[in-house]
Amino acid sequence: MQFNTTLDSIRVYEAGKPIELVVREYGIPPKSVIKLASNENPHGSSKKAIKAIKKASKEAYRYPDDSMFVLKNGLCARFGIMPSNLIIGAGSDQVLEFCVRAKCKEGSKVLMAKTTFAMYEVYAKQVGALVFRTPSDQHNLDEFKTIYKKEGADIIFLCLPNNPLGECLDRKDVYDFLREVNPETLVVIDGAYQEYAAYKDKKKKIDPTDLIERFPNAIYLGTFSKAYGLGGMRVGYGIAQEEIIGALLKMRPPFNVSTLSLVGAIESLSDKKHVDFSIRDCFDEMALYEAFAKKHKIEFIPSYTNFVTLLLDGLASSTEVSQWLLERGVIVRNLASYGMNAIRITIGGESQNRRFFKLFAKYLKKTAA
Amino acid sequence: MQFNTTLDSIRVYEAGKPIELVVREYGIPPKSVIKLASNENPHGSSKKAIKAIKKASKEAYRYPDDSMFVLKNGLCARFGIMPSNLIIGAGSDQVLEFCVRAKCKEGSKVLMAKTTFAMYEVYAKQVGALVFRTPSDQHNLDEFKTIYKKEGADIIFLCLPNNPLGECLDRKDVYDFLREVNPETLVVIDGAYQEYAAYKDKKKKIDPTDLIERFPNAIYLGTFSKAYGLGGMRVGYGIAQEEIIGALLKMRPPFNVSTLSLVGAIESLSDKKHVDFSIRDCFDEMALYEAFAKKHKIEFIPSYTNFVTLLLDGLASSTEVSQWLLERGVIVRNLASYGMNAIRITIGGESQNRRFFKLFAKYLKKTAA
Repeated sequence: MQFNTTLDSIRVYEAGKPIELVVREYGIPPKSVIKLASNENPHGSSKKAIKAIKKASKEAYRYPDDSMFVLKNGLCARFGIMPSNLIIGAGSDQVLEFCVRAKCKEGSKVLMAKTTFAMYEVYAKQVGALVFRTPSDQHNLDEFKTIYKKEGADIIFLCLPNNPLGECLDRKDVYDFLREVNPETLVVIDGAYQEYAAYKDKKKKIDPTDLIERFPNAIYLGTFSKAYGLGGMRVGYGIAQEEIIGALLKMRPPFNVSTLSLVGAIESLSDKKHVDFSIRDCFDEMALYEAFAKKHKIEFIPSYTNFVTLLLDGLASSTEVSQWLLERGVIVRNLASYGMNAIRITIGGESQNRRFFKLFAKYLKKTAA
Repeated sequence: MQFNTTLDSIRVYEAGKPIELVVREYGIPPKSVIKLASNENPHGSSKKAIKAIKKASKEAYRYPDDSMFVLKNGLCARFGIMPSNLIIGAGSDQVLEFCVRAKCKEGSKVLMAKTTFAMYEVYAKQVGALVFRTPSDQHNLDEFKTIYKKEGADIIFLCLPNNPLGECLDRKDVYDFLREVNPETLVVIDGAYQEYAAYKDKKKKIDPTDLIERFPNAIYLGTFSKAYGLGGMRVGYGIAQEEIIGALLKMRPPFNVSTLSLVGAIESLSDKKHVDFSIRDCFDEMALYEAFAKKHKIEFIPSYTNFVTLLLDGLASSTEVSQWLLERGVIVRNLASYGMNAIRITIGGESQNRRFFKLFAKYLKKTAA
């Protein structure tokens, strides 16, 4: 059967067996396996959220409130916006997808950093859009400008801070860049890790309300998957001017966020204590990663997120390291698929991080010998 | 800002405030409100599923297993299929969306009954496909054939049984029709309510495995939202030949089903007792609706689902009836938006149905007076 030709260039993402099962193949008890690969909050979900989910579980048979009335009210109060400036997705991923599908078609152009969130390209390819990337792995606005001047773009993706590398542009530089962007270009500011960046350095902080007031062609994306500890529940949001939100809402399927996900997000939003603790602890522990890297002369990218990327050129092969760690029950993200000899490690809880340090030191000692 | 012109014909679905809030405006205590509008299972979710969701709630911070290993295994065992014949979506809705996006683009053609599931048209319009409908409200395969011969189609939607009307074609007639369909046309057999139809009349039963063996251009859609009592969790699936599933998987975003939704679906699948009871009880209660309708000389469509559609021409206005019931705490679906003077009522639990009968009889008495 013939399908749209735009599908020809898309490779199906094959997740394979759950990583836990793979690890068990190495005879490691499941409880000894630690996942530092998906940037989940090692402190879990807010206890208030878990309690609310448990209480609401008997409502799993009911369709969710499709107006998302309570969650929208909470986010509007948080950001000082109107419901018409807000769209809620199954993760900010889904809002990304709405952006691409509303704005792009075959032959449209999207512009992004060389090494950034993989789904920008996947969604672009699904509609047959052309993908332009900067030469540098990390975000470099001069390179963005050069390509944009030459090619234009229907969408520009800025990942602030950037997944999977961890760097973050200054707000001032972003704003300067946005002033040169045509109002017809949709600029997606992916703030999945913004809570971390804003805590570490105020210069990185993007305020969604300020952003969309200054730049009506920008959309800010936020998520409950990282600092808010709800990665499994799939809730994210987009904040933009009504004109943009109105177009994206046309792509939103009804009931796109589950009944229990709404409940979890509403409670998480109000549990500031859990979020603040998670972020503070993340950077306390990250300092230990940095000290570890310096001690072992491993280059790393200073990170404004809840993960750190170690660059292994001249030291080890990221594929070998990842496999060696996996066989010992520690799962990290190998960035070989991004064309980099690097590993991305989620900042875990205290004992998880200690275990990583001990194990990685052992690996380095072994290879140096 | 300009968006894709295909969006121009799409109206944003405005859910408005939650129905409960509206009802509270009439001063009805929330506990007295009954929803017979969304075809949820009045017996709720499987107790096993609720228990499992509660237990797994502390895992809400973790991304779901994107391979959906356990749920896929369960569905494969149930239907005697291979994982390569299966795709899981956030409700069967999302699989519908994948079908349209993989197969259609601007100017593609889709064919459906005049009055059928509203999302077929919404998804078609999102990609700019042209929608052809039969003249009759209910499925009429002769009309399908006539239009198909004249116009052809990239996708044909058959809703078996049909939402929101409740009628169901015989399997034999469906198969006869499918033999005349070009192998390049994707035929979507929407089986959201198949469990109900198969129980009531074996002639209506579509076996997904048999279907796709005979017709490699067909896809069967199933859901956990109805008989399985998980409407709020958003889990559905598509069963088709590997060629079709392979194309749809290219449109699937990662983590499209939440961690707790997977847990709930896995447990629900194994709780045959709850499903069987729910279906049996539905038809026991439906017999009372039919007796009620006959007694009050209300025309109805014999239903193979968990709802019944009452035709009100010459008797009352569906808009007035729905509003009158709403003000008294009973929510039904007004089909005026489908161009019909009819209401669709979900078969509720025993006391809910009694309340409906009493109230509706009162309305009829009032208007007759």
